[in-house]
Amino acid sequence: MIYFDNAATTKPDAQCLKAAQKYLDDQFYNPSALYAEGYNLHRELAETKSQILNFIANDRDFEVIFTSGGTEADNQALFCGGKRGNIVITAGEHAAVYMAANALKERGIEVRIAPLNGDGSVVCDKLLGLVDINTSLVSVIHVNNETGAINDINYLSKAVKRINPRALFHSDGVQAFGKIDEKLGKDIDLYSISAHKIGALKGTGALVKRKSAAIKPFIFGGGQENGLRSGTENVFGIKMLAFAADKKYTCIGENYSKVAKLNALLRERLDKSLFETISGECASPYILSVGARGVRGETILHEVNDKGLIIGTGSACSSNEKKRYSRVILACGVPEEAADGVLRISFCADNTEDEVLRAAEILNSTVKSRRDIMV
Amino acid sequence: MIYFDNAATTKPDAQCLKAAQKYLDDQFYNPSALYAEGYNLHRELAETKSQILNFIANDRDFEVIFTSGGTEADNQALFCGGKRGNIVITAGEHAAVYMAANALKERGIEVRIAPLNGDGSVVCDKLLGLVDINTSLVSVIHVNNETGAINDINYLSKAVKRINPRALFHSDGVQAFGKIDEKLGKDIDLYSISAHKIGALKGTGALVKRKSAAIKPFIFGGGQENGLRSGTENVFGIKMLAFAADKKYTCIGENYSKVAKLNALLRERLDKSLFETISGECASPYILSVGARGVRGETILHEVNDKGLIIGTGSACSSNEKKRYSRVILACGVPEEAADGVLRISFCADNTEDEVLRAAEILNSTVKSRRDIMV
Repeated sequence: MIYFDNAATTKPDAQCLKAAQKYLDDQFYNPSALYAEGYNLHRELAETKSQILNFIANDRDFEVIFTSGGTEADNQALFCGGKRGNIVITAGEHAAVYMAANALKERGIEVRIAPLNGDGSVVCDKLLGLVDINTSLVSVIHVNNETGAINDINYLSKAVKRINPRALFHSDGVQAFGKIDEKLGKDIDLYSISAHKIGALKGTGALVKRKSAAIKPFIFGGGQENGLRSGTENVFGIKMLAFAADKKYTCIGENYSKVAKLNALLRERLDKSLFETISGECASPYILSVGARGVRGETILHEVNDKGLIIGTGSACSSNEKKRYSRVILACGVPEEAADGVLRISFCADNTEDEVLRAAEILNSTVKSRRDIMV
Repeated sequence: MIYFDNAATTKPDAQCLKAAQKYLDDQFYNPSALYAEGYNLHRELAETKSQILNFIANDRDFEVIFTSGGTEADNQALFCGGKRGNIVITAGEHAAVYMAANALKERGIEVRIAPLNGDGSVVCDKLLGLVDINTSLVSVIHVNNETGAINDINYLSKAVKRINPRALFHSDGVQAFGKIDEKLGKDIDLYSISAHKIGALKGTGALVKRKSAAIKPFIFGGGQENGLRSGTENVFGIKMLAFAADKKYTCIGENYSKVAKLNALLRERLDKSLFETISGECASPYILSVGARGVRGETILHEVNDKGLIIGTGSACSSNEKKRYSRVILACGVPEEAADGVLRISFCADNTEDEVLRAAEILNSTVKSRRDIMV
């Protein structure tokens, strides 16, 4: 089976699992406990935070709040950062931001949504035009999870602060962390990451927070994570995140080049008369969104699945919304009849050229025979 | 090392880990994905919910919302159930309920707190006296996590509904699930459970909800868990919870008897001139709270830790609150000078009589020499 749905989730890394096994077998203690075994884990988690931070930011300025995943991190950013006036998001946000913003709207917060370019990136001047002195939070996805479009969050956060220095700037970094080698600049306040997109586990993530950014807790209780996220720390999941991040950042440039080659090869081999590319040339190479006009993406997904190829259609996380068309793909300006046939192919560094060649064959032949049936 | 802090967390069960390994190695797919591998996991999770429900409730009337743990489940119950008027809780609630109630107070909800008996159980008529027609939620911990006191939640929920049929009844069942063989009656609406207290993993739990009870989502996004809890399902953690629950409920009576014997043996062997028992005779045998008057619990904890015994002082989850005295122990009427010396000893069915005998020796000799120094 060729697995090209790595933006939905990834296979847990066997080496990391081996390294983390001791946190299931021996080091299972509660890090909030006062005895040595608990306290040692507490100290180890503090070091783990520094390690993770160092990959993406200056660890003197930032702190890590471990969460149950990217969705919770996004929710904490929105609900505990966007407390008054208006918030500004993009039409390309993941459902975790978009639906949280919807809920904020019901609580009386004005939600302003910036439009997208055709590749899924936000139209920067439109976004900045929505920010004013009453904006409490701006949220811009770093790498769009459906098209791979990269938003320049360092530029945008700086520009936002020039308009309103008190607005918090959040970015959902779930599809960027461990893949795009970029450090968080000094105007980014909050950044969401997820473990299971980089070879670690479902149920773990973090909200990276500028120390000076004041946000409230989202989950209340025993006061873990400096009072900002209560609940017994998921030590095994956290260590898996740290091990996987270490592995990804050690080879981040190498992995990027490798995946860029796979992406370019697939673009080249897909039959241009059958597929049009939605992802831009500057998109993250980890995600390739293509449209197969006139056929249903879901049908293609199932047919290629039977032939040994796993791909996605839009965001897996949105599959429960029971909507036929991806909100984000429509916001890219793709018309409904084409949006129906959108496929998301997403790579990891363990994928191979042979897999790409085989996938291209499967995709070309499947769409072609579907088209032939329809003619 | 003798581990008697099983109420804080438990060692993950090796058999269950082995059974769940395939969800890390092969079945790592995203259950929201549309292809067969994802959809099969989605269906499997639905069956898993039924299995878990059958242990504690009638699965036609209830549903399971998987969460990141007991704390999140408690928070969802409070924030998404206690939406108006007043809420009624007990002074014996876990911090996850207590601090969430505190946060609700800041949002304009009146919070009424029912007092405790000396053993940590709620004073039933005082609790019921606080419920009125404006009560939106009542939350009563099932087994108190510091003293083991068991509240009769089926009786209390029925009595609450007689006063106000529209009030939601929630119970934190974290220390009861897998240990106390009691089914949820027809007046309980919400019930929180945690995985890592029964040999499964940190970072997993559930809010069991009566189907007819209307609550809102707490975490928004892709719409998983019937829209009530978004975020990619933590399949490995969920399967571990199901395997561990199955193991616990298969031997629940046997385990209860075994632990009751261990508890009785420790009560018998602890020197009555040094220790007074706080836990009542009808408490859950899994938790034994004792006071060592005139010495500091934390000092004893560290000294016995050096001698190979791990015990707790109050709730580990509250250790970050940096409070010297346990709020719950004080609410039991224990005076401050005695509350300082409270120790919590908590068992699992894998503990042995030999461990209890050795622990009694260590505790007796440690407190005695501390006392001798002080004289």
